Amino acid sequence: MSLIVQKFGGSSVADAESIKRVAKRIVETRKAGNDVVVAVSAMGDTTDELLDLATEVTPIPAPRELDMLLSAGERISMALLAMAIKSMGHEARSFTGSQAGMITDATHGAARIVDVTPVRLREALDEGAIVIVAGFQGFSRESRDITTLGRGGSDTTAVALAAALDADVCEIYTDVDGVFTSDPRIVKKARKLDRITSEEMLELAASGAKVLHIRAVEFARRHGVTLHVRSSFNNSEGTIVYDPSRLPEGAAVEESVIAGVAVDLTEAKITVVGVPDVPGVAAKIFKIVANTNANVDMIVQNVSAASTGRTDISFTLPKSDGERALTALSNSQEAIGFNSLQYDDQIGKLSLVGNAMRSAAGVSARLFEALYEAGINIEMISTSEIRISVVTRADSVHAAARAVHTAFELDGEDDAVVHAGTGR
Amino acid sequence: MSLIVQKFGGSSVADAESIKRVAKRIVETRKAGNDVVVAVSAMGDTTDELLDLATEVTPIPAPRELDMLLSAGERISMALLAMAIKSMGHEARSFTGSQAGMITDATHGAARIVDVTPVRLREALDEGAIVIVAGFQGFSRESRDITTLGRGGSDTTAVALAAALDADVCEIYTDVDGVFTSDPRIVKKARKLDRITSEEMLELAASGAKVLHIRAVEFARRHGVTLHVRSSFNNSEGTIVYDPSRLPEGAAVEESVIAGVAVDLTEAKITVVGVPDVPGVAAKIFKIVANTNANVDMIVQNVSAASTGRTDISFTLPKSDGERALTALSNSQEAIGFNSLQYDDQIGKLSLVGNAMRSAAGVSARLFEALYEAGINIEMISTSEIRISVVTRADSVHAAARAVHTAFELDGEDDAVVHAGTGR
Repeated sequence: MSLIVQKFGGSSVADAESIKRVAKRIVETRKAGNDVVVAVSAMGDTTDELLDLATEVTPIPAPRELDMLLSAGERISMALLAMAIKSMGHEARSFTGSQAGMITDATHGAARIVDVTPVRLREALDEGAIVIVAGFQGFSRESRDITTLGRGGSDTTAVALAAALDADVCEIYTDVDGVFTSDPRIVKKARKLDRITSEEMLELAASGAKVLHIRAVEFARRHGVTLHVRSSFNNSEGTIVYDPSRLPEGAAVEESVIAGVAVDLTEAKITVVGVPDVPGVAAKIFKIVANTNANVDMIVQNVSAASTGRTDISFTLPKSDGERALTALSNSQEAIGFNSLQYDDQIGKLSLVGNAMRSAAGVSARLFEALYEAGINIEMISTSEIRISVVTRADSVHAAARAVHTAFELDGEDDAVVHAGTGR
Repeated sequence: MSLIVQKFGGSSVADAESIKRVAKRIVETRKAGNDVVVAVSAMGDTTDELLDLATEVTPIPAPRELDMLLSAGERISMALLAMAIKSMGHEARSFTGSQAGMITDATHGAARIVDVTPVRLREALDEGAIVIVAGFQGFSRESRDITTLGRGGSDTTAVALAAALDADVCEIYTDVDGVFTSDPRIVKKARKLDRITSEEMLELAASGAKVLHIRAVEFARRHGVTLHVRSSFNNSEGTIVYDPSRLPEGAAVEESVIAGVAVDLTEAKITVVGVPDVPGVAAKIFKIVANTNANVDMIVQNVSAASTGRTDISFTLPKSDGERALTALSNSQEAIGFNSLQYDDQIGKLSLVGNAMRSAAGVSARLFEALYEAGINIEMISTSEIRISVVTRADSVHAAARAVHTAFELDGEDDAVVHAGTGR
């Protein structure tokens, strides 16, 4: 008997009808002879509605109380889901994060899982029940308070449960058929991948692919959890996210050449103009930025102009961090001694990800050529072992993605099917 | 320093604005130098909306999951209320039923409180925080599951907290100014009572007065908790519900003569026609009815007709229990040997409640006379030590209440002010 963890996002449980559909799917998995543990998000827009309510009450809600508030969302969806399953004649029990033993630190709104003690879940499984667990939420032993895991929390809950219960697979149900070579809304010929390594998935998620949250992928990789990303709207096989180092020796591994092309339009570029080209200045700048909790991504430093002894430093960061970073830098203009600041939120980032880059030469040359032929100007470049990212103008990054997708022979034969909505 | 427990119902916290108003009120109580513990219901219609959702998913929701679902409602209101208070610069902390130590049996939907262990509440109070507790919900040690207390649960939560924390008073905020001599929507000249004994309050609540739930009043009486029923819309003194036996000897007690007139339109009458007048038949009938969990109120047995050796037995019960009782009786027609069943849901019950009845003679005579003068026919009568109830036609019970209210000189000088809505 296999143990399967399934995660359903908010769009999969948006109303009573969808909940019944999901319940049917869970029951089918159970009937196929599996133990089933389900992590579920809050229904549809519940979380946003609760956030709106909080903001109506006070502009800056107390973090402890905000977590208490938001955790109500999954209680509703999980109880309804358990009811639906029971009404189909199968035993089901719902558990809150704290009942499920999802122990976190005490950081409200972005708690880290420190331990999972699924005693009650094992008991329920032993008694033949289908187990439904509230995604996104946990419990701090230290403060004895309810916590939430932040964005992508339900994916992380599912993966953490799969790791703690030594599940055979963690199925992430979503509104697309799996992980694609690119976003099908941008690149129509994007192709569903049958398999992808967790490392590639990590780079794709970090580069803007929204199908899985980077934190859940990291957790899965660290704990050797195999993910199966698949659609809640059909029964097709989705994409297996696996760790090749954990496969039995000699197991056939399909070596993906290039996994995909990701696009990210959520970043902005800050350029610090006329920085004195002396040691330690970059360190000063990025310490100031780090202190605002801004998440710096790419960094480029120009060659210094000999005549002035000054240079420019550009970096990208999430647009939502932009204002805080600008204010902090501006306040330190004298201390750093730069001339001016430029802020550009009209940038797009394209990333090409694949294990092939480790060995195959010429990948970057082919990328740059494809962009050149499409008439797209490259503003910044950064690379990791299995990724190349370039920054372009925001309005040309979609065309860039299509060109690169074709150049690397990723195009499928048919257009991909696109569903609406995303989960939490 | 006094410890005050305050209870706010769903209509007092129906939206963000009301929550802020309630928060202000709580803060004022705190500023006046009191420790404050608040029991709060779910916002407005939240509970009904959750129930509707459950019914959409399955006609008969599993009780454990239904409690899990409904308990989300108070999480939302209590977290928002705590946020609102904190935003006013006062420390506040919300606690679920289980965090507050509200230990119940495992009867989902109608759990009984078996113990209150408010360890975390005391800690929070010692640290100077205002404590917000989810009304209506508890936790079963036995099943380790979330439970709910059923109708009137939040009032009961407040009273149980007041008892466990040895509070000076338990304030029940509602949408009326206190306990009235009658329902102001029916009897315009109804007068607010300044004080009422818990025994009288119990009889009034049992007779259809909706201002306090009978269970909470019973709990208060058993544990010697003084209640203060007052409006959440103004700062007027409301009605004190007290236990005269617990007053210090020699304390001045305003002996109410007649506390009030209650009306109940929720009952129906079943008449079992042609019952053999032999010993044990009534026992049989009421055993069958009791087995349906129907809540029998008044019982009247006619004098047996000598010619037939048969009699009629009539009893009242909540309309919602009517069908079950009828079916059960009908199935036992042969065993009991009655001729037929009559069902009448067009009845009204009027009850006159007051300590005066213990000693003062002539109360019932005056009541019957008032009804006679108003041309109202009495169909059934039952009495307790401090109550007389009569059943009339449903469409004349309001007129009856006005007549009796006047006859016992309960009318106030001005019309009472009526607000809309009721809490849970």
